[in-house]
Amino acid sequence: MPRTGSEVLARVAWSRLAEPGDPHAGATVAELGGEGALDWLRHAAGHPGNLGPATRAAITRWAPRLDDLNPERDLAEFERIGGHVLIPGDDTWPNQLADLGSEQPHILWVRGNSALLTQQSIGVVGSRSATRYGEAVTGELGFGLSDAGKVVISGGAYGIDAAAHRSALLPDHGAGTVAVLAGGVDRPYPAGNAVLLEAVAAQGALVSEMAPGSAPTRHRFLARNRVIAALARAVVVVEAAHRSGALSTAHHAARLLRPLGAVPGPVTSVSSAGCHRLLRDGLAVCVTGVNDVLELASPAGLGIASTTPEVHAGLLDGLDPLAARVLDALPVRAAAEVSALVRACGLAPLEVLTGLGSLELAGRVRRAGARWARVTS
Amino acid sequence: MPRTGSEVLARVAWSRLAEPGDPHAGATVAELGGEGALDWLRHAAGHPGNLGPATRAAITRWAPRLDDLNPERDLAEFERIGGHVLIPGDDTWPNQLADLGSEQPHILWVRGNSALLTQQSIGVVGSRSATRYGEAVTGELGFGLSDAGKVVISGGAYGIDAAAHRSALLPDHGAGTVAVLAGGVDRPYPAGNAVLLEAVAAQGALVSEMAPGSAPTRHRFLARNRVIAALARAVVVVEAAHRSGALSTAHHAARLLRPLGAVPGPVTSVSSAGCHRLLRDGLAVCVTGVNDVLELASPAGLGIASTTPEVHAGLLDGLDPLAARVLDALPVRAAAEVSALVRACGLAPLEVLTGLGSLELAGRVRRAGARWARVTS
Repeated sequence: MPRTGSEVLARVAWSRLAEPGDPHAGATVAELGGEGALDWLRHAAGHPGNLGPATRAAITRWAPRLDDLNPERDLAEFERIGGHVLIPGDDTWPNQLADLGSEQPHILWVRGNSALLTQQSIGVVGSRSATRYGEAVTGELGFGLSDAGKVVISGGAYGIDAAAHRSALLPDHGAGTVAVLAGGVDRPYPAGNAVLLEAVAAQGALVSEMAPGSAPTRHRFLARNRVIAALARAVVVVEAAHRSGALSTAHHAARLLRPLGAVPGPVTSVSSAGCHRLLRDGLAVCVTGVNDVLELASPAGLGIASTTPEVHAGLLDGLDPLAARVLDALPVRAAAEVSALVRACGLAPLEVLTGLGSLELAGRVRRAGARWARVTS
Repeated sequence: MPRTGSEVLARVAWSRLAEPGDPHAGATVAELGGEGALDWLRHAAGHPGNLGPATRAAITRWAPRLDDLNPERDLAEFERIGGHVLIPGDDTWPNQLADLGSEQPHILWVRGNSALLTQQSIGVVGSRSATRYGEAVTGELGFGLSDAGKVVISGGAYGIDAAAHRSALLPDHGAGTVAVLAGGVDRPYPAGNAVLLEAVAAQGALVSEMAPGSAPTRHRFLARNRVIAALARAVVVVEAAHRSGALSTAHHAARLLRPLGAVPGPVTSVSSAGCHRLLRDGLAVCVTGVNDVLELASPAGLGIASTTPEVHAGLLDGLDPLAARVLDALPVRAAAEVSALVRACGLAPLEVLTGLGSLELAGRVRRAGARWARVTS
């Protein structure tokens, strides 16, 4: 669909007519374009008699808002405060939103650098009532991901969201941050994050599918979470209590097949209970740091090294099993003959000699005549 | 194989001849019985010429220890300190050890109540260098599991192991605890846990496949871990650093298809890094409390209730989605007409009325003439 002024205006109208994620609106706009769908709605609202019940129900949802529409004014006012809108087909429209199918936003209202929306991004979300632990981990993740060239996406809320944005906001550093809001981007919510969110608008991007002036209702928060999940290449939940809204983002991510990570925490912390539940249910992978998240987000096989070494490494102190058994059998202060080591280890003489050979090469034992002794450092 | 005095003595001998987990010894004893295998060894050691290389290598491992054997004395001395031995076929022999195949112990040396070995048990293991967090979680788990009738099995080490035994040791309470040692049970190791381990012997059981007097070498610690995993119905790792020996128990549990749980902790704690790795690798299930562990250990479908409610509960404050959207749209202090709610919610009039009906039933809204208002409590 080429970008025309009338298509943009029609989609501005649709962002006022339908609540976010209304699949009937999404399907209609996808089929007819915003403009065609709007023409159809105006006609159908006057002649609802020959429509099916689902369509008639949809029209009764949308039609009451037809009279108040003024998309030209909406757009002009938004551009006056420095905003711009994106519709599908625009250069910086994030095509990954198509994964939402009929729940795809009609339009995005953007304050800031919309080019960030097409870059590789990681959703970092969590509880509003975060602990210091959660905020510290989020800060590490956000800084590290931004440093690694990933845009950090979150929801602009208190707690984990704010920590995520803040950590990715260093001027002239990192890939930037995007806040996806549930209400209009002209009045960032919550008010307590106003300074932070204005900084996100200035250095990153504030985004919403809701028209300016729209209030952030609970339904819109839940619907907004699907946009965070769809924009991101992977989503990480840092802290979430059992009833945290961050879990709805997590479930959207799982539904959209976005790799999903959860940061564990103390089992005694209610703020980590939701993360542990995601891990228990097998919905999320356990992530403990930036590299784990990068690995989660990388296409399989790119093989970013894990932060964590193989678990078995070092159990034997870097020695092969034979050598470790022989070393264990050597007295701490005295020297021993091979025959004594054979009895002590339960190894064959040839195996003991092989073990002693490795240990000698490693500088751990030395021969003293017919006996062997530990090298003490 | 019926229990005969000579079979017991032969297995006492085998517990001195072969190192634990020697599969060649296991296979030979399984095929010929302990007594037959010992007769064969005595003969074959004198005529090694016509044997294959693997068998010859095995004989060179075992034969040097033949001369020092004195199983009658071993057994008499062990019985003098109140111990007894178990061999396969005995009433309290734990048949689940058969899952170890050719690595099954030949014999178990027991101080205490060997009946505990046939009861349902959970392995609770972890780092020697545990944190206060790890010890606290272990204490909760051990007490709760014991209270729920599960024997708590661990390795008698400092840290998590000690906390697990201690929490399951309340006199006249709980199912009891078993410590599986890497060396002889006559001299419990480590010495710093002597008081604790004597209490385990008195109220629970100290168990080893190694004969009295055997030193706990590193190889024997690693081999011992397979016995903990095989005895337990499920294994939980509470804290483990990257190189912790508890991870070898975990890998044995995974190999033996024992359900494996890992307790998460702060990602900033090196003592939880091994647990997080088990979770990341999908080897372990995330467990956060006693009920999670009981669920892990129960045959699938017995349906012990999880400690954690469904994550979605409460996102909408206990309301159905329609009602929640309508309630959100109602002004906090003023009343509103249905038509205004229709515009505000983006719902059809019938849907708004349905939502209002639910809210009225729930005592959340009241009708005031043609308008509706919130009920403030």
